[in-house]
Amino acid sequence: MRDLLPAEKQKREQLISLIRETYAARGFQEIETPAVEAIERLSSGQGGDNEKLVFKVLKRGEELERAVSEGKELADLGLRFDLTVPLTRYFASNRASLPRVLKAIQVGPVWRAERPQKGRYRQFLQCDIDILGEPSELAELELISASLAALDAIGLSKATIRVNDRRLLKTQLDAAGISADQDRAMIAIDKLDKIGLAKVVEEIAESWGTESAQKVSAWLSADVSDWPEELAWVQKLGDDAARLRYDPSLVRGMGYYTGAIFEIEYPGAESSIGGGGRYDEMVGRWAGTDTPAAGISLGIERIIELSEIDSNKGKSLVVLIEDDFAGAMSLQEELIAEGYSVRLERKAKNIKAQLEELAANGYEFFAYQAASRQELEIRSLA
Amino acid sequence: MRDLLPAEKQKREQLISLIRETYAARGFQEIETPAVEAIERLSSGQGGDNEKLVFKVLKRGEELERAVSEGKELADLGLRFDLTVPLTRYFASNRASLPRVLKAIQVGPVWRAERPQKGRYRQFLQCDIDILGEPSELAELELISASLAALDAIGLSKATIRVNDRRLLKTQLDAAGISADQDRAMIAIDKLDKIGLAKVVEEIAESWGTESAQKVSAWLSADVSDWPEELAWVQKLGDDAARLRYDPSLVRGMGYYTGAIFEIEYPGAESSIGGGGRYDEMVGRWAGTDTPAAGISLGIERIIELSEIDSNKGKSLVVLIEDDFAGAMSLQEELIAEGYSVRLERKAKNIKAQLEELAANGYEFFAYQAASRQELEIRSLA
Repeated sequence: MRDLLPAEKQKREQLISLIRETYAARGFQEIETPAVEAIERLSSGQGGDNEKLVFKVLKRGEELERAVSEGKELADLGLRFDLTVPLTRYFASNRASLPRVLKAIQVGPVWRAERPQKGRYRQFLQCDIDILGEPSELAELELISASLAALDAIGLSKATIRVNDRRLLKTQLDAAGISADQDRAMIAIDKLDKIGLAKVVEEIAESWGTESAQKVSAWLSADVSDWPEELAWVQKLGDDAARLRYDPSLVRGMGYYTGAIFEIEYPGAESSIGGGGRYDEMVGRWAGTDTPAAGISLGIERIIELSEIDSNKGKSLVVLIEDDFAGAMSLQEELIAEGYSVRLERKAKNIKAQLEELAANGYEFFAYQAASRQELEIRSLA
Repeated sequence: MRDLLPAEKQKREQLISLIRETYAARGFQEIETPAVEAIERLSSGQGGDNEKLVFKVLKRGEELERAVSEGKELADLGLRFDLTVPLTRYFASNRASLPRVLKAIQVGPVWRAERPQKGRYRQFLQCDIDILGEPSELAELELISASLAALDAIGLSKATIRVNDRRLLKTQLDAAGISADQDRAMIAIDKLDKIGLAKVVEEIAESWGTESAQKVSAWLSADVSDWPEELAWVQKLGDDAARLRYDPSLVRGMGYYTGAIFEIEYPGAESSIGGGGRYDEMVGRWAGTDTPAAGISLGIERIIELSEIDSNKGKSLVVLIEDDFAGAMSLQEELIAEGYSVRLERKAKNIKAQLEELAANGYEFFAYQAASRQELEIRSLA
């Protein structure tokens, strides 16, 4: 986990703000769930491998004493590992107060106890949109269109999306004679990018025989310039459809997907910058009855690295003051009213070094305090 | 802990955004620290009673096994209970990358394992500003001025601030012959609002004798229309000074305060809506050398209840559509370009009920999808 310095935090807030506005303009509404959820929910099987990475929160007081002495589960809560499991719990708990179709924005930290490695953090920010209650492809269309618009808004208009459908994958596996243990076959296919076609085919052959392997090979290397019938709806995106590509090997790790699946790519980025899909059965886990649902999550940490947007500070001015604090306070209010953001700073002995530090920190203008606004001489720090 | 519904979340984000802008205009810069800190830091004695309320995070893997089998501490991390302890740790860790004087904004959740009670949550939002590295009263002046401006920005211009100084309290206790166990005497004085002067004087008399009690009584009931010399600096606030009041009984719970202390009040509010003070010795705990520091924290949960600001949604429009999703997607983009926020919604069988639900959810306009923007008839939902 890490601290954010002022410049990093400013860029982050600015990007998030642009993304939020883009989503809100398309009728999405922001919601929030707590950072912690009941431990049972975080180990229900919906979170796949992420469930192994939960930071667990210790029981408290007598309950903890009892758990220790009776050798029971020590934790009753856990830090959320994604925003999807909490959202479906939220929808199930608050259904009566929510619109029939919920179009939700969520921006918040999630936690995973992964081994520390370069560029990966144990607390990181996710930004999700989800549509719950919409069974038709209108959900997929809106999610894709809004995500591309949000990426455009922060200057990442080269983003593209790979698309597949879990139902299509299943049909293809059936046709290849792979009916048992389809999940394991999908895991093998998912590795195409990393290990290449030959090795995937080899893995399939080992478990399901040569004939199945040949069929999988043919399907994975087929021409994908045409959309399969199951994904023909993407054409309804108009111009945006050209930014989508059918990827027959796209699987996505999570077990909960039931339909279309997406992965967002950016030229030069080492890994995907977002992804999602349809998960029609998860709400039913908590609410009893299924609710159609689909979502797309943006990986904010990677997006921040890629986006080259300029932090827009407005006119930033530093007023160097001595002992007249009362005068400085009133001058500050006058300058704010003129549109400046105004930092008061006591004049250092070494003014040259002070001005250099201020310029390095991105401030644009400075002035020595004067008795009135008229007498104040605003100079550039450049 | 609780879920935030769309309307609550919108109001919250809008208020925070206004507060942030007000602070940023005064040269404060936003920073962020992780939600969890090392458990040792959260039990170092700096957090007072809050340290008893830490949600502790269980160790993981082999370390946990070892802790269980050897009967050692089971937790290595904890959820932060305030933003001040993490800030001072942040300043100590990142000093080389930070300006000499850091004027920090922090907005983020904190967690306290309190017994559940009405209106109090175990996860709640704090919004702090702090100035680190400024020894003079310029820090206090800027903190108070910025906090009042932020409260004004969200319509809470009736907020006032009670002010005292820990050093003044100590001097007064010394003069009353209370030199040992001053902390306990302060705790008694702190209860003036709740139990009244007579009972405070009684408590003092029991532990320190009648003479001390009489002196405390005289000091607490003295005329406070004049500022004591130690707090004369508040006059430098100009007009804002009239919103401050000297309160000789103000103590504030935390042990870490070393100078001026503040508590923000609002007419009709049951408890304070914010507070803070100078804490010159806390950074030194982690960094070795002391750094002058002061801060004010706003209790966002209470402020949200008090503020009656209107959620400004822009022009919100719902387009009721049937099967032409492609047309709807392109119409949506046109309407967004015109300044609407546009929610697409499939036409329900019971249109009357649907329109009523939309109006109840705060949407202003609706339209039935048409073949082009020109043919679209936008009507009011009111």
